[in-house]
Amino acid sequence: MGKVIAAITVSLDGYVTGPDDGPGNGLGTGGERLHYWVMGGPWTYADERDFGMGAADREYFDALTADLGSGIVGRGMYDAAGAWGGQNPFPATLFVLTHRVEDQPAESSGFRFVSGFDEALAAARADAGDGDVSLGGGADLIRQGLEAGVVDELAISTAPVILGGGKRLFEGFTRDLDLEILATYPATYAVHTRYAVQR
Amino acid sequence: MGKVIAAITVSLDGYVTGPDDGPGNGLGTGGERLHYWVMGGPWTYADERDFGMGAADREYFDALTADLGSGIVGRGMYDAAGAWGGQNPFPATLFVLTHRVEDQPAESSGFRFVSGFDEALAAARADAGDGDVSLGGGADLIRQGLEAGVVDELAISTAPVILGGGKRLFEGFTRDLDLEILATYPATYAVHTRYAVQR
Repeated sequence: MGKVIAAITVSLDGYVTGPDDGPGNGLGTGGERLHYWVMGGPWTYADERDFGMGAADREYFDALTADLGSGIVGRGMYDAAGAWGGQNPFPATLFVLTHRVEDQPAESSGFRFVSGFDEALAAARADAGDGDVSLGGGADLIRQGLEAGVVDELAISTAPVILGGGKRLFEGFTRDLDLEILATYPATYAVHTRYAVQR
Repeated sequence: MGKVIAAITVSLDGYVTGPDDGPGNGLGTGGERLHYWVMGGPWTYADERDFGMGAADREYFDALTADLGSGIVGRGMYDAAGAWGGQNPFPATLFVLTHRVEDQPAESSGFRFVSGFDEALAAARADAGDGDVSLGGGADLIRQGLEAGVVDELAISTAPVILGGGKRLFEGFTRDLDLEILATYPATYAVHTRYAVQR
C-alpha cells in the first residue's frame, strides 16, 4: 500500500486562502500570491497563464507526485477551482469529498464524488493500488486526515506572504503531533518542506 | 542605521509556545520541541544542557546576529525565561518591554526595562548605533513591530511539531504584507527562513 500524502500551500501566517475565497474568487482576496510558485511568478485570474514552476519547485513537485495513484480534494476546493473547467487536470483519479453526490459528473471527467472521509479514502486507496494517495485540500480535508491518524506525510509549501485572514490550515485543530523533516526545497516563491507524521 | 529583525521559532501550526507557558513552564507544555534546534536535539528543563546547534542552525544564527547591536523582548518572555537566571546571556543590551519598569534590575544584569514599544525601539536603536535591533519575542512584541511597520526582516524558524495550542504568532493580526525570501537554512530540527518585509 502506498502512502497518504497531504499537500497544501499556506501563507506564513497559516492561511490556505485569503479572505472570501470560493467560486468566482478562487484562493480568496490576495490569495493568488500563494500560488506564485506554481505559476513561476505574479499572475491573476484574468491571465491565461500556464504553470511555470522554477527548478526547485519542479523538483519538489515531481518528487512528491512520483508515485501518486489517486487524490482526494474537498468539495469546497473543487467548487472554488471551478471544477478545473470540468476536466480533471491531474494524472490520476480525483475523488471529491462531498455530501452532494447526486451532482456526480460524467466518468470521463476524471472526477468521482464520494460522501464521507473514510469512504473517500478507501475508494482512493483501492484506485491507487500500490501508489500514493494525495490529500490536496482544502484545510478541513487535511485536518480530517490528521485527526484520523492516516496521514503518512505532510507536504507544506510556505509562500512569502502574510494574508491577515482567510481559511487557516490548523483552525480548531488541537492534537499534538511530532513530525520529522524529510526534505526541504527552498525556492523563490515558496519554501517546500516534506514532513513524516510520527505515529 | 541598522535593520530591525524580528526572529522567533514557531511550530508548523503557528504557535510560539505550547499550552500554559509562563514562569515555571517555559515554552509551555510540549514547547521544548520548538527549541530542539537550539539544543541540538531533545532536551528538558531538568537538563543542565548547553546550546548545541547543528551546522545549518549555527550558520543561520551567526548570519542573523552578525550585526546585532541590541535586542528587545517582551516582559512575558523575560519572565517565562526566568530572566535567564538574572544575567543577560546575549552579547548585546537586552531591552525588556514592560508596564512595570519599577522592577528595573541592576545595570550590571545587561537588562533594561522600558515602557512602551516606541520608547523601547528608540532606546534599542540608540544603543545599537549602526548595528541591528532584534525583536526576540514573544508573539505580541513581534506583532507590534509588524503593525508599526518598522520590521525590516522577519526570521522564522519552523520546528517540526504540531502543538495544537499555545500562543499563536499571528493571533489577531489582520494586516496583509508581502515578503521576500532572502535565505533558507534547512536543518534537522527546524527550517529557518529569512524574509524581507516589503514596504
